[in-house]
Amino acid sequence: MWFNAAMPDTTRPSALGSTGASELFQLLRDGQPRTRAELAAMTGLARSTVALRLDSLGELGLVGPVADAVSTGGRPPTRVALLRSARVVLAADLGASHGHLALTDLLGEELVSRRGVVDIADGPESVLGWVVDQADELLAELGKSRADLIGVGVGLPGPVQFTTGRPVNPPIMPGWDGFDVPGWVRRHLDVPVLVDNDVNIMALGERTRSWAGTDHFLFVKVATGIGAGIISGGRLQRGAQGIAGDIGHVRVPRGEGIACHCGSTGCLEAVASGPAVAAALRREGHDVHTGRDVVELVRRGDVGAIQAVRQAGRDLGEVLTACVNMVNPSVIALGGSLAQAGEHLLAGVREVVYQRSVPLATEHLSIVQSRTGDGAALVGASMLAIHHALSPAALDELAAAG
Amino acid sequence: MWFNAAMPDTTRPSALGSTGASELFQLLRDGQPRTRAELAAMTGLARSTVALRLDSLGELGLVGPVADAVSTGGRPPTRVALLRSARVVLAADLGASHGHLALTDLLGEELVSRRGVVDIADGPESVLGWVVDQADELLAELGKSRADLIGVGVGLPGPVQFTTGRPVNPPIMPGWDGFDVPGWVRRHLDVPVLVDNDVNIMALGERTRSWAGTDHFLFVKVATGIGAGIISGGRLQRGAQGIAGDIGHVRVPRGEGIACHCGSTGCLEAVASGPAVAAALRREGHDVHTGRDVVELVRRGDVGAIQAVRQAGRDLGEVLTACVNMVNPSVIALGGSLAQAGEHLLAGVREVVYQRSVPLATEHLSIVQSRTGDGAALVGASMLAIHHALSPAALDELAAAG
Repeated sequence: MWFNAAMPDTTRPSALGSTGASELFQLLRDGQPRTRAELAAMTGLARSTVALRLDSLGELGLVGPVADAVSTGGRPPTRVALLRSARVVLAADLGASHGHLALTDLLGEELVSRRGVVDIADGPESVLGWVVDQADELLAELGKSRADLIGVGVGLPGPVQFTTGRPVNPPIMPGWDGFDVPGWVRRHLDVPVLVDNDVNIMALGERTRSWAGTDHFLFVKVATGIGAGIISGGRLQRGAQGIAGDIGHVRVPRGEGIACHCGSTGCLEAVASGPAVAAALRREGHDVHTGRDVVELVRRGDVGAIQAVRQAGRDLGEVLTACVNMVNPSVIALGGSLAQAGEHLLAGVREVVYQRSVPLATEHLSIVQSRTGDGAALVGASMLAIHHALSPAALDELAAAG
Repeated sequence: MWFNAAMPDTTRPSALGSTGASELFQLLRDGQPRTRAELAAMTGLARSTVALRLDSLGELGLVGPVADAVSTGGRPPTRVALLRSARVVLAADLGASHGHLALTDLLGEELVSRRGVVDIADGPESVLGWVVDQADELLAELGKSRADLIGVGVGLPGPVQFTTGRPVNPPIMPGWDGFDVPGWVRRHLDVPVLVDNDVNIMALGERTRSWAGTDHFLFVKVATGIGAGIISGGRLQRGAQGIAGDIGHVRVPRGEGIACHCGSTGCLEAVASGPAVAAALRREGHDVHTGRDVVELVRRGDVGAIQAVRQAGRDLGEVLTACVNMVNPSVIALGGSLAQAGEHLLAGVREVVYQRSVPLATEHLSIVQSRTGDGAALVGASMLAIHHALSPAALDELAAAG
């Protein structure tokens, strides 16, 4: 439990946002060089507080002086910046059957990455063991060691209690329920480990890379499962139990009587997920099993597949209509395997949402395909880890350990 | 436009929350006396910044020294506190056919109040003229004048663009569309005027008075209209256009083919609002027209009315299921006239939400009747005005004007 004790409130964006001291790091995280006076003015923090924090960061080698190109005569004030290459972050995107890893710098830029076939059902020790082994190989590839690592961000394909990093009743992850993921990884890599569900990290990554100015943003993943990541008022909203955005089991009209793997009937996932659309097409004689198979069929111009994907879009639209009226986003980005069917899924979603939502909510609403693509999850996982690693509490811990 | 220019970003909670200086006022708003050193330590602000802000507040008469009861020898450090009675706030809750006004102190406590019959359809100048006249009478009643007023908070029964305070296509408010409510009121009362929709101010008030520790909270009003106020991550979420929570026109299964006043069919409001339930009971021979009539019938034990209210609860539950999976609140409070039917409406909502939502989302979810009652709207309107009036930008403006 010691690792959780070391990261209680700082792991919650709301707690981070409420301490004045965190604002300094928010500013530095953009990579821009600034003077101490600028940092004090921008944050309203005491000069002494700014100096103290910069000293800590300097001692850890995370921040350093930047040469000023333009001299105006006299000794120019020293500007400091985050040294993006000082340490590396491990980002892991684990799916039902894939593992995607990357080492990034402190601004979240990928340095080296690796894909592997991973069966999440093999259980946490096997899958996380693979992650740790691959991390070592990736570090070696960069000429780095475990000592260069500052944090780990992990995305998992199921609900996660964010404050503890433990999966909660994950439907497709046998053996993972309640497993202490941060504790296990930390015992091997000895840095703070942040864990969230895959859709939340995709939402973070998609927003970071493609919608940085958008404060009200929905990311919807349509793949084996269906889920949403919600950014409201500029912050990822996880809800009381960390499961905000779990829209796959909302009932839709067309689902009436159709059994869902969750034990209920009529769920969105039972009619609009990749496997559900594939099953419908199999009944029409096609040999398809996954969302990717369906997308392949759509790309070959199969009319039945196009109609099925468009209908899945309409079903999704029924649920997103409620979401749009509820959270009033300005952008909805669709990602996940079935979203690769491009305009066909989007057309179905738009058809229902634009017809059924309050005009004021849709007037300025864009419904688009994910722009960041596959890499969004890794960017988000990296951001999660960096956000925590550069928080005052984590830096204190790092300084004490060093 | 000058009044809007004076309150651009500070009226947005996200902007307020991001400036270190605002934290000082957040602390003072609880009414507790604190030393300057405590305030500096709690906010991480420079002592000089704290001193500067306290001086401004002192000059305005809003903050003052508080006598220390316990002397530990030597000169004890002076503690300062918000002088709650220094100024008054006007809170206005305007409905389709009622106007409820109060003057409160700087902690939102009601000092004097008044109810009136107001027809919102008389248009903004008539209705707001009544507000201004009554404000003068209430001020006189307290032995105060317009100079004692520090801000006005107004709730309106329709969508409001929060950044400008202008109603946007309000269905039951002819003549109000785009009307500059803050400008009109300010021309008469000469203080900042904050305007929001009635459900948002009820959510703020209900949370302030009864659920202060609850960061993920839904307030649902079931009356002539149906709407929700959403508090996520401790903040009221208004969405991109300020209409988050507008759930009255989400389609529900039982609504199929039923025309709604919005021009669409199948809307939640078309089957579960007070007038919709009354209309259904009229078809069974009852002489009822409003939600209040329905509640009266329920209280007399009429089985048909009880069943109709419970069914309205189920319809509401269909939409709230999506909301629960989407925002994952820990408390849903039902208010508005139809919620006065007590357990019957709640039972219908609970029946559907607990059956249909993800178990993890409902395990710790309370669905309850509003505890603050009618007064929630006034508390919320007052909070909105105080939050703004004590923001750094508003205080600067106040100091410049004085």
